[in-house]
Amino acid sequence: MENIVTVGGGTGSYVILSGLKHLSDISLTALVSMADSGGSTGALRDELGVLPTGDVRKCLVALSEHTDIVRKLISYRFNEGKLSGHTFGNIFLAALEKVTGDFAEGVAIASEILKVKGKVIPITKDKAKLSVMFSNGTLIEGESKIDRANLQNRKIKKIFYKNNVKLNPKAKQTILKADFIIFGPGDYYTSIIPNIVVQGFKEAIKKSKAKIILPINLTNKRGHTIHWKVSDYVRVLESYIGKRVDFILVNNKAPSKDQIGRYKLKRGSGILVKDNFIDSRIIRKALLSHKFFSNDKADRLKDARSFIRHDSQKLAECINKIINK
Amino acid sequence: MENIVTVGGGTGSYVILSGLKHLSDISLTALVSMADSGGSTGALRDELGVLPTGDVRKCLVALSEHTDIVRKLISYRFNEGKLSGHTFGNIFLAALEKVTGDFAEGVAIASEILKVKGKVIPITKDKAKLSVMFSNGTLIEGESKIDRANLQNRKIKKIFYKNNVKLNPKAKQTILKADFIIFGPGDYYTSIIPNIVVQGFKEAIKKSKAKIILPINLTNKRGHTIHWKVSDYVRVLESYIGKRVDFILVNNKAPSKDQIGRYKLKRGSGILVKDNFIDSRIIRKALLSHKFFSNDKADRLKDARSFIRHDSQKLAECINKIINK
Repeated sequence: MENIVTVGGGTGSYVILSGLKHLSDISLTALVSMADSGGSTGALRDELGVLPTGDVRKCLVALSEHTDIVRKLISYRFNEGKLSGHTFGNIFLAALEKVTGDFAEGVAIASEILKVKGKVIPITKDKAKLSVMFSNGTLIEGESKIDRANLQNRKIKKIFYKNNVKLNPKAKQTILKADFIIFGPGDYYTSIIPNIVVQGFKEAIKKSKAKIILPINLTNKRGHTIHWKVSDYVRVLESYIGKRVDFILVNNKAPSKDQIGRYKLKRGSGILVKDNFIDSRIIRKALLSHKFFSNDKADRLKDARSFIRHDSQKLAECINKIINK
Repeated sequence: MENIVTVGGGTGSYVILSGLKHLSDISLTALVSMADSGGSTGALRDELGVLPTGDVRKCLVALSEHTDIVRKLISYRFNEGKLSGHTFGNIFLAALEKVTGDFAEGVAIASEILKVKGKVIPITKDKAKLSVMFSNGTLIEGESKIDRANLQNRKIKKIFYKNNVKLNPKAKQTILKADFIIFGPGDYYTSIIPNIVVQGFKEAIKKSKAKIILPINLTNKRGHTIHWKVSDYVRVLESYIGKRVDFILVNNKAPSKDQIGRYKLKRGSGILVKDNFIDSRIIRKALLSHKFFSNDKADRLKDARSFIRHDSQKLAECINKIINK
């Protein structure tokens, strides 16, 4: 039984977990960023003072073995009245935090109700307001602002939390017991790195004997990773975790013309397809899905990139081969 | 295995079901009024166009065999932001109706998630706007208005639904297969009778061979049943169902001074304690609870009467004796 751990946030974690949950003989844990501050999640954070729910919700739905209707319920977004814009699952997690007084305990109860395979663990129990400091002294605060900002026209000095955001002890145990840790796929600066900069994460990764797997994103994000090549993704991740990546998963299948067309229509950014980076750690496979993903209105612009996604099953099969080598 | 059916609405059904669920060898079904139009339930009805959730929610919590924390979650009321005033359980049922497209199916799924013992069945699937017509021609529409109105200063001509509100076929089957049907406890004009005036209910009761049990309310409701005696409760119910009641359960224990004091403080109405109505169908027992019930702010005024409640266990024991005679 291998301990497999994913590190990430929203849609990317949803995609990879949806595939990994079908593998046998693994123990699966999702570590989830707590930096999200936009949309329904942001409104609930502001109004109720709860921790961010959206990314956790997506991981729960990915790993739930309950009926389709219950999984649909969790993702249901109200579109009328005062509840308009809120997904039911966010309200569910917010109420659980209120009732238990502990977000992580609420997530555990939600996991039980939703018959989740594996575990979903918030990376921290502290309120986490992500900040970016640039070399010229300017500062951007809040994940949703950072998400929309151009981070490439200035030099990033550091990505950090102003307050003392500590690693959740359960996340620490998970990292120490892991056999494989997978970073992403997902937005680098708003889904992946927000986990790594939590106080205690780097130390835990240093102590862990886990092999590190990096599935390279399929697309570059406007204002964040435009013009990046595979080597950039590897270099930046390694600089943040302070450790060498063991396996680099690179897609070698081009998106269809339809996908590219739709992607451009939605103002998507660079598509990462051709890259001749040579490295013995690279595994090149067809990892791209040709399905169309319909996003609900509220996410439409934000998720332009989501029209090009990994194929959950192919990604999981690729990882399964690594595990059973 | 006896088929026991309760007919009612909110708090009264909660109290009796909480006791009945512990009886063995019974199959328990709660038929629930769909007329509620006040508070969180009313807001969700208006804004989302869903059926009323509050009374069903209370029955689900009463019959849930899930952990205390999950039952607490369902009853949790938000007190900040846009969700303020809404109970989580109401939002849960509203979302389930939206996702399934059928309130009754939503209730069935909620029952499964909450590990409900027995069944909770909405009396109708139709939108039900309760109306009262007086002999002088005036009309009051909407359950929450009727709840607050003085119905005793004029003569009620009829209580009805303007539109065609039909008996839920599952409620019909339940009535036909019932061995015992218990009406109440609960508000006569806003929780009990709204079930009976649904089209098809009286016909089903007529065909049913079930014995009818009537636990008499502990208190009279201001503007609705002030000055009523046991005989009035029996007479009015019989006139609505068109059938004779078989067992009349009358409490013979007085509330404590503390209870009466608190009750008066909260502007409660008449307390029904002394009644010398002689009838062979009457069973007199100590059925009153001496517990204090704390109500949340939103319900405080409305639920003044709730400070004097039946003791769930004693009520259930009394009914158990009738069943096993």
